[in-house]
Amino acid sequence: MSAYSELSAHFTRTAALGNGIGILQWDSDTMMPKGAAETRAESLALLRVLHHGMVTDPRIGDWLAGASGEDLGPWEQANVREIERQYTVQTALPADLVDAASRASSKCEMAWRKARAEADFPALLPYLEEVLRLQREMGQAKGEKLGLSTYDALLNDYEPGGRSARIDALFDDLAQFLPAFTEQVLEVQSRRPATPPLSGPFAVEAQRALGVEMMRTVGFDFDRGRLDVSTHPFCGGADNDVRITTRYDEANFSKALMGVLHETGHALYEQGRPRDYIFQPVGQARSMSVHESQSLLMEMQACRSREFLTFAAPRMRAAFNGAGPAWEAEALWRSYTRVERGFIRVDADEVTYPAHVILRYRLEKALIGDEMKLSDLPGAWAEGMKTLLGVVPPDDRLGCLQDIHWPSGGWGYFPTYTLGAMTAAQLFDAACKADPSILPGIARGDFAPLLAWLRTNVHSQGSLLETDALLTRATGRPLDASVFKAHLVRRYGGEMEQHQAA
Amino acid sequence: MSAYSELSAHFTRTAALGNGIGILQWDSDTMMPKGAAETRAESLALLRVLHHGMVTDPRIGDWLAGASGEDLGPWEQANVREIERQYTVQTALPADLVDAASRASSKCEMAWRKARAEADFPALLPYLEEVLRLQREMGQAKGEKLGLSTYDALLNDYEPGGRSARIDALFDDLAQFLPAFTEQVLEVQSRRPATPPLSGPFAVEAQRALGVEMMRTVGFDFDRGRLDVSTHPFCGGADNDVRITTRYDEANFSKALMGVLHETGHALYEQGRPRDYIFQPVGQARSMSVHESQSLLMEMQACRSREFLTFAAPRMRAAFNGAGPAWEAEALWRSYTRVERGFIRVDADEVTYPAHVILRYRLEKALIGDEMKLSDLPGAWAEGMKTLLGVVPPDDRLGCLQDIHWPSGGWGYFPTYTLGAMTAAQLFDAACKADPSILPGIARGDFAPLLAWLRTNVHSQGSLLETDALLTRATGRPLDASVFKAHLVRRYGGEMEQHQAA
Repeated sequence: MSAYSELSAHFTRTAALGNGIGILQWDSDTMMPKGAAETRAESLALLRVLHHGMVTDPRIGDWLAGASGEDLGPWEQANVREIERQYTVQTALPADLVDAASRASSKCEMAWRKARAEADFPALLPYLEEVLRLQREMGQAKGEKLGLSTYDALLNDYEPGGRSARIDALFDDLAQFLPAFTEQVLEVQSRRPATPPLSGPFAVEAQRALGVEMMRTVGFDFDRGRLDVSTHPFCGGADNDVRITTRYDEANFSKALMGVLHETGHALYEQGRPRDYIFQPVGQARSMSVHESQSLLMEMQACRSREFLTFAAPRMRAAFNGAGPAWEAEALWRSYTRVERGFIRVDADEVTYPAHVILRYRLEKALIGDEMKLSDLPGAWAEGMKTLLGVVPPDDRLGCLQDIHWPSGGWGYFPTYTLGAMTAAQLFDAACKADPSILPGIARGDFAPLLAWLRTNVHSQGSLLETDALLTRATGRPLDASVFKAHLVRRYGGEMEQHQAA
Repeated sequence: MSAYSELSAHFTRTAALGNGIGILQWDSDTMMPKGAAETRAESLALLRVLHHGMVTDPRIGDWLAGASGEDLGPWEQANVREIERQYTVQTALPADLVDAASRASSKCEMAWRKARAEADFPALLPYLEEVLRLQREMGQAKGEKLGLSTYDALLNDYEPGGRSARIDALFDDLAQFLPAFTEQVLEVQSRRPATPPLSGPFAVEAQRALGVEMMRTVGFDFDRGRLDVSTHPFCGGADNDVRITTRYDEANFSKALMGVLHETGHALYEQGRPRDYIFQPVGQARSMSVHESQSLLMEMQACRSREFLTFAAPRMRAAFNGAGPAWEAEALWRSYTRVERGFIRVDADEVTYPAHVILRYRLEKALIGDEMKLSDLPGAWAEGMKTLLGVVPPDDRLGCLQDIHWPSGGWGYFPTYTLGAMTAAQLFDAACKADPSILPGIARGDFAPLLAWLRTNVHSQGSLLETDALLTRATGRPLDASVFKAHLVRRYGGEMEQHQAA
């Protein structure tokens, strides 16, 4: 067997283990009775140790050395590159550091649940200090191996090839644009007639049926996936078995519906990864920003469009026996594109969401870089909110205690949300230009042209190309903020109102 | 660490892996989309190889040797005994033989599905010959290590300590009794007024709700278990996470209801295993016959009793808006204790079921012992059916092709069904004598007295005692056929009719 074949076989086995873990994790979040939690934690911990042993197997180093002398095709070369990247990261950290960081995060997560409920940042502070210290240490260890700054080394886990210098420029551009633009959007909205509310209750079974219908409409393959319920919606599962979740609110069907479409965007990416390399690192999704671009492309770009809501409105009415002006496509569109300044990131709309992310990105970079003390976080948070969003949270529960990311050790993750939003806009724009039948298709519930473009240009590419190269191939240029801004201006800037008034 | 502590820690880890496998297997049978089958098979195969590596870890031999010199309590001693028993069996077989047998069974199972559908035994014959040859070889290898005959070595996998000489005596006793008794039962039944049928359809949701209500009634702990749907009902899952399944027929709710009560009997055993040893071999269920005794005790002894049906009848009527004479407790009891001669084991009633099992037991023992040619199976089957049941199947689909056990490599399993039925009768009889409040409790839907007796005498014992010792401790004597026969005579022999006539 060639060294490459050994590598490939090893990662196929590793994927088999990872797929088992994926389903067990899904089960923990959807099906598991609560009395099984400890027993399950033991199973998952054991399997994760075994998985870690496989991805750090010292033979990988030998096989990589051997494969470098072999004559390989482009996919195989890219697979070697991805394996080497992961192996370098996975073996950069001493086991006791990984263990200490994992324990500190578990403790901090527990402290965070209490501290958030009580809006008590000082109670969290010592735990979070410890998490931050260990994250910094891990970032330094990885950074040394990879030749990256500490923050970039952390970012690299979620966004391979991502660099903060680049993100600074993109986010500064947006940060300059957003405050005044948000003002303008709110002004435009204030001139509109009030939208009557949709009145429920909306039966869970009907919500589920509508969600499934819409998943089928956009192209979800139920032969290789499922829709279930969990407290926190996610897209998980395994290769060829992509499982998304949602939660239903009988008072508001739109949350679950838009949530399902968001997760379906993730799922379509997973279901569209290259079949021949599905178990290999090169066959995985490119990065978190590209993943988020697929969910946001589906939810924000495609399904909050007037075209989609024209198609969906009669189906919503049929699902819930809806009647009256609130159920008209235009009213639904207004409700689905409503902008509001708020304190909470996960409740934010498309226009204000980036401000939440930019704030967190700037703060976590300063904290990791030791340019700011953690005890100063609440003050810095309030100041940043004021500048970027024009509102100041009344307490830390609605401020710096709202997200689980930092307590749980997810430092370097936040920027991928807004990179994803920008990527989504750039991809959707390129798709609609490349195939003018995409938007008219969506208006008829025909997502085949859009899905075909995504399959060709994103999904089937796996990790063959680096993120910039992928985006350049698909859209003609690397990521910049202009298309996203243009999208926001077009959708929210009042052009339609001006047009109608003219 | 002492050798015993090492053993115990090793088996706790092994259980964590086994529990993961259990949930993934459950998922395959209940939740998995069909397009994930191959991917899942890879995951399960990998995890089973890892599990096999753990239970055959050569360090176990060293730890066992070390533990034999340590001062251990009775549970620890029994744990060492159980570990040694399993280790001897698991290491008795060369890996290539296990692999060959597994492949032959997979192929034979596929051939069997086709052969059964086409009632074509000759098409199955070469595959089944290969399975039989390898099973015999495995039985010989294990038998040499254990000092057992080939058949007893196979039986030992399901029924540790079980011996065919003993089963021969028990089954010969039953086989002498059953043909004439079945005749008598049919005669008694023929004199009864016709029972009107329950007319459906019975909505699946109502069936499920009734099943859940009855599971709660008998004592199932939903904090550590679930009820779901699968093609073939089973009790599976993991430690602290016992998952049973059923399937619903809208034309007949009784099948699912009695199936659920049967699986709940298995589940109560699993949920009642000793908490302190739940991950250890000594904390596992004693044997397949004891396991089947728990399902049959619940389904046959407790829940097909007049007492239970007195309690259940109004709940059934409420669940399905039932009204009329068919829904009276006595009519339901008659329908739930109806005896019929049939060709199919899984459809058989309590009286005729043992005949199906005795036939299979005698045939598989002769085949493993090379006292009969496999090509003679259809003829021997017909002859045995005639003698034991008085009917002859019109073709092999309704005859020797009906069960998956032999094609899939499950030789030595069949007798545990009827051993279980006999054990159930003996345990239930002892329980009711020990606590006279059990039957009156059942009539009120209060299963607490019965469950308390089972917890104390069976469930919490795990594998502390050998099967005979367990039964002797619980009932005063080892297994014999008399209590089971007495139960059949009392329930089916027409005493009630004689009593009413007098």
